[in-house]
Amino acid sequence: MDRVFSDSSRLQRMLDFEAALAVAETRIGVVPPAVAAAISRACRVDDQFDLDDLARKAASAGNLAIPMVKQLTELVGRANPEAARYVHWGATSQDVIDTGLVLQSRDALNLIEGVLNRVCSRLAKLIEHYRHTPMVARTWMMQAVPTLFGLKLACWLDALLRDRSRLQEVRGRVLVCQFGGAAGTLASLGEKGIAVSEALAAELQLNLPAMPWHAQRDRMAELGAFLALLTGSLGKIARDVSLQMQTEIREVSEPAGEGRGGSSTMPQKRNPVACAAILAASTRVPGLASSLLSSLPQEHERGLGGWQSEWETVPEIFRLTAGALDRSAEIVEGLEVHPSEMLRNLDLSHGLVFAEAAMMALAAHVGKPEAHGIIEAASHRALTSGQNFREVLLADPLVTAQLDRDQIDRLFDPLRYTGSAQQFIDRVLSESRPRMKEEGT
Amino acid sequence: MDRVFSDSSRLQRMLDFEAALAVAETRIGVVPPAVAAAISRACRVDDQFDLDDLARKAASAGNLAIPMVKQLTELVGRANPEAARYVHWGATSQDVIDTGLVLQSRDALNLIEGVLNRVCSRLAKLIEHYRHTPMVARTWMMQAVPTLFGLKLACWLDALLRDRSRLQEVRGRVLVCQFGGAAGTLASLGEKGIAVSEALAAELQLNLPAMPWHAQRDRMAELGAFLALLTGSLGKIARDVSLQMQTEIREVSEPAGEGRGGSSTMPQKRNPVACAAILAASTRVPGLASSLLSSLPQEHERGLGGWQSEWETVPEIFRLTAGALDRSAEIVEGLEVHPSEMLRNLDLSHGLVFAEAAMMALAAHVGKPEAHGIIEAASHRALTSGQNFREVLLADPLVTAQLDRDQIDRLFDPLRYTGSAQQFIDRVLSESRPRMKEEGT
Amino acid sequence: MDRVFSDSSRLQRMLDFEAALAVAETRIGVVPPAVAAAISRACRVDDQFDLDDLARKAASAGNLAIPMVKQLTELVGRANPEAARYVHWGATSQDVIDTGLVLQSRDALNLIEGVLNRVCSRLAKLIEHYRHTPMVARTWMMQAVPTLFGLKLACWLDALLRDRSRLQEVRGRVLVCQFGGAAGTLASLGEKGIAVSEALAAELQLNLPAMPWHAQRDRMAELGAFLALLTGSLGKIARDVSLQMQTEIREVSEPAGEGRGGSSTMPQKRNPVACAAILAASTRVPGLASSLLSSLPQEHERGLGGWQSEWETVPEIFRLTAGALDRSAEIVEGLEVHPSEMLRNLDLSHGLVFAEAAMMALAAHVGKPEAHGIIEAASHRALTSGQNFREVLLADPLVTAQLDRDQIDRLFDPLRYTGSAQQFIDRVLSESRPRMKEEGT
Amino acid sequence: MDRVFSDSSRLQRMLDFEAALAVAETRIGVVPPAVAAAISRACRVDDQFDLDDLARKAASAGNLAIPMVKQLTELVGRANPEAARYVHWGATSQDVIDTGLVLQSRDALNLIEGVLNRVCSRLAKLIEHYRHTPMVARTWMMQAVPTLFGLKLACWLDALLRDRSRLQEVRGRVLVCQFGGAAGTLASLGEKGIAVSEALAAELQLNLPAMPWHAQRDRMAELGAFLALLTGSLGKIARDVSLQMQTEIREVSEPAGEGRGGSSTMPQKRNPVACAAILAASTRVPGLASSLLSSLPQEHERGLGGWQSEWETVPEIFRLTAGALDRSAEIVEGLEVHPSEMLRNLDLSHGLVFAEAAMMALAAHVGKPEAHGIIEAASHRALTSGQNFREVLLADPLVTAQLDRDQIDRLFDPLRYTGSAQQFIDRVLSESRPRMKEEGT
Repeated sequence: MDRVFSDSSRLQRMLDFEAALAVAETRIGVVPPAVAAAISRACRVDDQFDLDDLARKAASAGNLAIPMVKQLTELVGRANPEAARYVHWGATSQDVIDTGLVLQSRDALNLIEGVLNRVCSRLAKLIEHYRHTPMVARTWMMQAVPTLFGLKLACWLDALLRDRSRLQEVRGRVLVCQFGGAAGTLASLGEKGIAVSEALAAELQLNLPAMPWHAQRDRMAELGAFLALLTGSLGKIARDVSLQMQTEIREVSEPAGEGRGGSSTMPQKRNPVACAAILAASTRVPGLASSLLSSLPQEHERGLGGWQSEWETVPEIFRLTAGALDRSAEIVEGLEVHPSEMLRNLDLSHGLVFAEAAMMALAAHVGKPEAHGIIEAASHRALTSGQNFREVLLADPLVTAQLDRDQIDRLFDPLRYTGSAQQFIDRVLSESRPRMKEEGT
Repeated sequence: MDRVFSDSSRLQRMLDFEAALAVAETRIGVVPPAVAAAISRACRVDDQFDLDDLARKAASAGNLAIPMVKQLTELVGRANPEAARYVHWGATSQDVIDTGLVLQSRDALNLIEGVLNRVCSRLAKLIEHYRHTPMVARTWMMQAVPTLFGLKLACWLDALLRDRSRLQEVRGRVLVCQFGGAAGTLASLGEKGIAVSEALAAELQLNLPAMPWHAQRDRMAELGAFLALLTGSLGKIARDVSLQMQTEIREVSEPAGEGRGGSSTMPQKRNPVACAAILAASTRVPGLASSLLSSLPQEHERGLGGWQSEWETVPEIFRLTAGALDRSAEIVEGLEVHPSEMLRNLDLSHGLVFAEAAMMALAAHVGKPEAHGIIEAASHRALTSGQNFREVLLADPLVTAQLDRDQIDRLFDPLRYTGSAQQFIDRVLSESRPRMKEEGT
Repeated sequence: MDRVFSDSSRLQRMLDFEAALAVAETRIGVVPPAVAAAISRACRVDDQFDLDDLARKAASAGNLAIPMVKQLTELVGRANPEAARYVHWGATSQDVIDTGLVLQSRDALNLIEGVLNRVCSRLAKLIEHYRHTPMVARTWMMQAVPTLFGLKLACWLDALLRDRSRLQEVRGRVLVCQFGGAAGTLASLGEKGIAVSEALAAELQLNLPAMPWHAQRDRMAELGAFLALLTGSLGKIARDVSLQMQTEIREVSEPAGEGRGGSSTMPQKRNPVACAAILAASTRVPGLASSLLSSLPQEHERGLGGWQSEWETVPEIFRLTAGALDRSAEIVEGLEVHPSEMLRNLDLSHGLVFAEAAMMALAAHVGKPEAHGIIEAASHRALTSGQNFREVLLADPLVTAQLDRDQIDRLFDPLRYTGSAQQFIDRVLSESRPRMKEEGT
Repeated sequence: MDRVFSDSSRLQRMLDFEAALAVAETRIGVVPPAVAAAISRACRVDDQFDLDDLARKAASAGNLAIPMVKQLTELVGRANPEAARYVHWGATSQDVIDTGLVLQSRDALNLIEGVLNRVCSRLAKLIEHYRHTPMVARTWMMQAVPTLFGLKLACWLDALLRDRSRLQEVRGRVLVCQFGGAAGTLASLGEKGIAVSEALAAELQLNLPAMPWHAQRDRMAELGAFLALLTGSLGKIARDVSLQMQTEIREVSEPAGEGRGGSSTMPQKRNPVACAAILAASTRVPGLASSLLSSLPQEHERGLGGWQSEWETVPEIFRLTAGALDRSAEIVEGLEVHPSEMLRNLDLSHGLVFAEAAMMALAAHVGKPEAHGIIEAASHRALTSGQNFREVLLADPLVTAQLDRDQIDRLFDPLRYTGSAQQFIDRVLSESRPRMKEEGT
């Protein structure tokens, strides 16, 4: 991802626009036949462009396109003075900057989609593997009732599958060409504006939008919001892993590795460094996304300040999301899972995590309100006495009046109290499959 | 919108969940036949519920559902003690709170869609009306080249049409039922969880998600991001209207009205009050959306703090977006447009807004780089001398060597220099039409 | 706090401005002597003002001041037509709205300071009580080395003391009067502007700023940022309490209470509801603060949209911060602390939390790099074998070559390994004292 | 500023910590006498450190300190194996990373203060120069009443002076050393923790805080909030300049310059490029500041994710603020001011900007409510007829009954209607002076 958003890639993607424009204009007959080849040949970053000089001049000119077009024109002119006349023909700075950013975004979305598919595919395998592994569910940070580790994993996958759908929708709306000329009319191309636009979009393999979008920036803001949603879904994974990895819980561990997660002063430490990086990203991305959203009310035909604020923000969000995704892939591909610790934690409350099960069993006989009262009192006795909850129930005549020992014993089997978990898992896995097939994984 | 998010609507939507749950569980045979009717009858806010008491108890209990279920159970119990046993059967607090918020969101999205369609439809009419009205395009806040007022309006519509597509996508993903029980397994319903879920979703006319989403909050964050995008598109309209309404520009005015936009101290003032409200909303919504995004990494099976932070944030965003939309409808429905002032502003630069036109005409003969130089120098002479740009061109031998007086004269007709504007307008209008037809407008 | 920011308080604080203005202008001789009394008498909300009507008209007028001044003028006029001529004399809508908000902010800051002092004072007592209570410190969510519960509490207090200093600085800068007339020149008061301003500020007991600040909104944004910092400090407390309250850790508990933190479905649950509310607030406030910051670049002499965006945002931040502070007071005043569980957790790693102590003891003999290596290897052996770390050290000739059994035994006493903790505690407590004395607590 | 936050500066500031620590520990007698010199000698970035290798290892280790300490230890060890034993003695990774960032922040704040003083000083001169230059004040984007250009400049300065005060307060709280060891107790230094801390702080010329602040991050968040306030004040300047620079208003211009603000396609364009950069910064910084605020509720003794999210955010805010400040200095140092255009705009409304003056003159005779009505009606007649407002007043018997021609004429002199403007200017200038004197400007 660093490569996609390097200075030289930024420039190359802008040059790709200029080359495609020359090709399109040649094809439509706006410029002479030889122009396309001459310009295309010069549109390679290589060492032909002086990046430092461009950066300096961009600050004064107000954007990168102006000095870039100048350098490109000189370069083309050296080989073919006639063709130099037609560099950037009909386009404005924003056309090349925006389309360049869209091209970078396409590269970036492709990378993201690849890793996202890998993460989803790996999660699907883990779900199958752990779909019968009992653990305790926690709500409001407190132990609640039994669940299955595979179901927790399915929650993660379920969200990522929605992000994958969003990615497709965003792609359709965002991966469009920008081409409007000075103020969005393509006036300088006379009657040939649309024809050139179509040829340009075809050349770049981008969609052609209904019209230019110089000051309508919802596409970029939507891109940021999508990436923030994805980063948030990854942050959720990191949150859970880091909570489960706590010394006192230790149900899972990040993959180990030489020099990984050590401490400069505590030799026994193995820190969840991937989680830290993901959580840091999910702390940073929302603010970046909000700056894109707050830049939307831009001025007139091309704005002042709002547009410029995108230039670093969009790449930064991509970098953070991609980083979070890479670290997530690390986690799901190397996650150490400790089912025995999960069982230990299930036992920690001396049976109180089965309180709901007991209440429901009782409720079938006496109704929920009364059952809730009986079990709440029993829970309280168990908590204060330290006695096992099963013993407390067996000693409670209000309970034993309705349930026999066998029935009570069965309440304390976590695998019997997982309701629709297997069906939920199947539903999520089946949603994950079709697309995976398409993609040949 | 205030009605949709009133305290009593919030409660009613939660009661709708409880009623539908009773109906669903009756249908599937989880609870006795008479229960559905008895519970449904009590699930009306009317004056049966003590909202102040509920609010007080919610603070202590941690959420509104707990005291609500208690009041409801008592209410049902007075009429039918047997049915009272089955109130909220198998559900957890979050099930009813989340589904209630989804139901409110559906109401709110319907309202928003209605007004949005009205705004789009009105904009389409304005575009037709002003598609040949010349005005000056402004970039970086400075006059640039000619454009058409109808094209500016088409930019606004183009963005709103994308928001309309987004609304459909969001609706599909967000308008789903929440039903998972204590920790997302529906354990307390044994084998009947999925069947009850399906019946419940059908009863509420919501989609049934693959699995519960207690701690996967991307749906709510996506809703916030969508509303922020829409508010941003409206903010763009307000930005343009307020800029064009400046005393020095006065190309358009907000609709007038008794007591509207006056000043307590300046009798001549007529302030763009609708723009102010819209811009205030577009300043506030991004921060609210970012708080939804930053709450995504929630803990375990049901989170602590993140989930709770949605309760007021989602309604607040809806209120602001709906307010901005109403004020936008006011603007587009009553906008005063002053084509003569648009012409005046086109003339203000003594022809300099035709500099690009001149450059392109010249470039056809001498290439763009040379043409840019000639015209830049001519522009500079016009600016410093205060002379009309046309006169300057006519006096410039570098220009007259290539262009005769007639050709030069034609450069200064704004309607001749609008390139593909009419086609862009057609493209946007045609995108707006199909759906409008469906919706019978 | 709800009272401070109720609709009727908002109106009353605006009326306080109008009354004080009349008094000031009478004193300076700008208006006739009888005016002050006549206007002041009418400046009481009581039932004289129709709040619903004001709200409706405010939407059309663009702000609340315009219809309020109108109602007030009528009210004054009924009793004293002469005085009615001088209502709002020389002021603009923004003067009364801004000063009203400043007066509300003063009330709010006073409330906040009171509770903050209570929290600090209570924390100081808890620190004294638990300054010798050992527990395990956790870094990156993993057990690290021993610490003291009193030191953790001192960290919380240390931050709150900084917030208390900030409060004083903010108070000096923010609690100023707004009075500039139509566009900040007080032109309508001729030569008497400053004199009236001084009298007005004196009457309201506010500072007089160097000049009006209609479009320079850093004061409000600073207020929001301060409140966000305070809410963040409280969020840190809630984070720690909720982590320590986890079923697997249970070192502290939120205060218990009838109906507090229960679950609608799990009878054994006792949720950290105060933590949830605080964490929700600390999730929401940063976004609200950022919207104030992003509204700063306002237009000209009085802005459009940015100013208006403050009207609800500032009260909302106050409400959230005050709520978080109240819940924090609840926590520190009723916190249940379980030192025995802290000891249990210290033991959980079979001695590994003393690895740093062992490394430093060894390092005194062999240098840190070598000691780090020896202890890392020993830690690893302890982890994989499940053996107690002390046994592993005693069996390691590289260790026993430098340290005898007695020295090794002493390493495992947590109270011996707390370094400067007592001095840090003393430093924080001494910073907390002086001001507490002043305030008589 | 790029230099202050370069990769090599980051490393050097961390090395400065290690060197100062060695010196302090030598002084206090914690480590042998020769250690300080040996370690200090190695603590120079030069080409001794492999930045790329460090970056790679930091990703795996979780932070930059761990591989840095390793490289440093090897480096020291090559020259002095004994001293190598004491590298980083008693410190934890976060101590060196935090203190390094504080040292960078000190450098950055010094740079910022320097430019801020220059901007303030230049503004003070401009204010003196333009304190009698009339222009029209604009509120809600519409012409309002007369004001003075010097008063507008004084508004800008007034805010910057508050930012300067804030800078001093922030400096005192933020420029403190971080030194707590593994978990904030300095346990590994036994009884000598405080003494070493004091010596370390003295060596680095930083304040010594009451206690370590590993997980209490309000200092960094406050720094971000301060920079956001300053950036906002600069954004306000850019907003006004860009609005006044509009082609239709042209009251001021950004300084001209070869290649500055040109357009790739419109030869006549001169864009406000400095304003664009400042406004872009003020769009981006609030979101970054909010991410610091939302990271405050960190976990336990040292957090996971929140702390890490500061590493890039703080430098990024500094870079943006410093950039905005540099561009602001450009603007105020080269601003072109066009008093004649200001007069032209004052005249644009045919006298309507004097409506308030007329109302107040009339109000002295008939009271404000009646005067408001008369003048509102007259304004309306002037607007609809296009007649000059003075003529309208002279023809209105309700007006001429109270005011004679002379009095009416005098109403239309803008310099007579500036109220307390000169005194406001004096008050701001006098606030700006004392400190400037101290600083020798």
